[in-house]
Amino acid sequence: MKWMIDETRIILEQLASEAKESGREQAQYETKVREILWEIETRGQEALKEYSEKFDKFKGDTFLVSKEEIKAATKRVETEVMDALKQAKRNIVSFHEQQKQEAFIDSGREGVLRGQLILPLEAVGVYVPGGTAAYPSSVLMNVLPAKIAGVKKIVMVTPPSETGIPDVILAAANIAGVDEIYQVGGAQAIAALAYGTTCVPKVDKIVGPGNIYVASAKKLVFGHVAIDMIAGPSEIGVIADDSANPVFIAADLLSQAEHDERARTFLVTDSIELAKKVEQEVEKQLVTLPRKKIAEKSLADFGKLIVVKNLEEAFNVMNALAPEHLEIQLPEPLSYLPKITNAGSVFLGSYASEPVGDYIAGANHVLPTSGTSRFYSPLGVYDFIKRTQFTYYSKKALEEDRQAIQILARKEGLEAHARAVEVRFEEDNK
Amino acid sequence: MKWMIDETRIILEQLASEAKESGREQAQYETKVREILWEIETRGQEALKEYSEKFDKFKGDTFLVSKEEIKAATKRVETEVMDALKQAKRNIVSFHEQQKQEAFIDSGREGVLRGQLILPLEAVGVYVPGGTAAYPSSVLMNVLPAKIAGVKKIVMVTPPSETGIPDVILAAANIAGVDEIYQVGGAQAIAALAYGTTCVPKVDKIVGPGNIYVASAKKLVFGHVAIDMIAGPSEIGVIADDSANPVFIAADLLSQAEHDERARTFLVTDSIELAKKVEQEVEKQLVTLPRKKIAEKSLADFGKLIVVKNLEEAFNVMNALAPEHLEIQLPEPLSYLPKITNAGSVFLGSYASEPVGDYIAGANHVLPTSGTSRFYSPLGVYDFIKRTQFTYYSKKALEEDRQAIQILARKEGLEAHARAVEVRFEEDNK
Repeated sequence: MKWMIDETRIILEQLASEAKESGREQAQYETKVREILWEIETRGQEALKEYSEKFDKFKGDTFLVSKEEIKAATKRVETEVMDALKQAKRNIVSFHEQQKQEAFIDSGREGVLRGQLILPLEAVGVYVPGGTAAYPSSVLMNVLPAKIAGVKKIVMVTPPSETGIPDVILAAANIAGVDEIYQVGGAQAIAALAYGTTCVPKVDKIVGPGNIYVASAKKLVFGHVAIDMIAGPSEIGVIADDSANPVFIAADLLSQAEHDERARTFLVTDSIELAKKVEQEVEKQLVTLPRKKIAEKSLADFGKLIVVKNLEEAFNVMNALAPEHLEIQLPEPLSYLPKITNAGSVFLGSYASEPVGDYIAGANHVLPTSGTSRFYSPLGVYDFIKRTQFTYYSKKALEEDRQAIQILARKEGLEAHARAVEVRFEEDNK
Repeated sequence: MKWMIDETRIILEQLASEAKESGREQAQYETKVREILWEIETRGQEALKEYSEKFDKFKGDTFLVSKEEIKAATKRVETEVMDALKQAKRNIVSFHEQQKQEAFIDSGREGVLRGQLILPLEAVGVYVPGGTAAYPSSVLMNVLPAKIAGVKKIVMVTPPSETGIPDVILAAANIAGVDEIYQVGGAQAIAALAYGTTCVPKVDKIVGPGNIYVASAKKLVFGHVAIDMIAGPSEIGVIADDSANPVFIAADLLSQAEHDERARTFLVTDSIELAKKVEQEVEKQLVTLPRKKIAEKSLADFGKLIVVKNLEEAFNVMNALAPEHLEIQLPEPLSYLPKITNAGSVFLGSYASEPVGDYIAGANHVLPTSGTSRFYSPLGVYDFIKRTQFTYYSKKALEEDRQAIQILARKEGLEAHARAVEVRFEEDNK
């Protein structure tokens, strides 16, 4: 891990310049992806089959996974895993139900009604990556909020493979209540969801992580359908003082680092002794990890031990980093909530280890990465609804507002706007 | 206007194929825009000055509009316009305050706290187009929701012109409570807001409509900062039966058509007589409109009179169109709210003419266009906040969930995740 011990101002400048250098590479994939999108938009199912054969060696007749296959796969999953998934589901549901939003109607003035409806999206597509990046916990996290929002059709797509879709992924989809599963991946899967083919239905929104082709395709179809955020490498930030347990912190940093060689880990502390102990513990615990190589590279390239003067400065640095996951390992951790301005999900105290949030606590684990918690939210029920406003005016109410509307319309040079009100008060038009 | 009288199924197919042909042209601008973004990201203020001189003949020392200029401009605006803007503001505020969302905290189980904070974005940029497309009403609609959300810094950018920024735009910004105004436009203004220069501050989100360069720049910086939706041509759909007043409907269609040659207008009705009368009325009212040419072209290219069998089918067609504005000109209009699945803003009854919503009613007039009300919402307070989750676990609570976490982590092959929980129960690590 890299040490940063300096004035906060200088640390912040360094971090900002590092952020600038990363995160630009997508343009080169776009030409290729644009072609795939175009082919599937214009040629539909035929093109989808060609790409699936070419990229994934898919040779089946249909992309649809049958109900029987899903049932059989679910039966093959160990009972203890099924129980854990169901427990996770209960907690995710009880958390996310609190995100439901209410319509409102307001009748503050005679003859006027205004309000807003909350409507679920009609159809949503969930992308689930293949291979070792296929996580059943992520299936629950992506699907359940859509379910709670009231989405009628939830479609899952996941790349085909010679060994088939992992049983536990099908089981998780089953538990979460996915309506249809298609064995199709990559940019071609995103195109199919965005434009529809005779087999794969067109959806209103596409969510879920994927490789660079998937991310690029999502960005290109954005506007034609809605998408969730573009996920970058995962991050954890830990704020701790000398009362914290370096063994716990090291284990939590490693749990992030094992995800991906590009995962980022930050410890920000006012105690150089704690930072030293954490560094030693990381090295010690690393030795026996199955994913040692990945974690080692991630820590070497993107691990940081940041020592600042006091906790006030620690929060300044951390808010600038705007981490996906933030652990507060300080006494009375809840009292620090008001100091946090940018973070996806916050873990409070020594026992709220970050994996608690990945699997069981119930808050979402699909979170804004790479500093985007400055403006993005965790995935939630609010991502699967849309709002529709409505306005009712009586003739009398319009009469009262007639002048103001016409003054503004004419000031903007929009005479037909003014006349639309005017005709309603002309004797001839009754 | 074009007539469509057929079975609903066939009308829907025709509408779908027309939608396919429109709306693909942006790629060609991207290369140029990408260069502008890159230059401003790397060379900052210097590059911003070069582009402003080149594209807008801007020669000033600073882009910042001084408080004195804003004050002087505000004083020059007619009292009746100022009063109408203030009345609009009151209604916009009272509507949007109902969109504020509440944090929640949940303690359903001993030793566990979970919750979600609602935090305002820190800084927001509002783009206001130049020339005749500079609408004071849009300044209020973009700025006030951000203000209500609690955004600390609201920055407005608008292209420079030889005659200066229109007084009424500066006055509206002043009324709405904009913090800083910069005279800079085009893709270079979007780049400045996304990356920051020594003069223009970096923001977290960029909202507001603009030309193709602005839209393209917004799409390219998406992910680095947040953006609102990409606005397409404006639309109105009217559902009416033979009890409706054709004069009113014609006037409302014209108020949409005068915006833009690409504006779309739809009447969907079960009465061919009404449709005929509306067509005649449109031609009659068109003659004396100052923006006759624009409205005429818009109606010829994108105006539709759609006649269906009954009102049930009318709603099916309209929900497929998913219009930005929807008027229900039927008896007892409120009773039809449950039939609407896709629409930005709905106007109920003969006297809720669409311009009522543009100027005075208080619901937002920044709405999803081109069928995107399938998945997007009107601009609102929710666009200027982000959510942060938090989780607290006691040791005892972690003990209870320990097994489930470890089973899932190991099933996903993430051993360090399992160990992060395990170390907290090892005797040595106390």
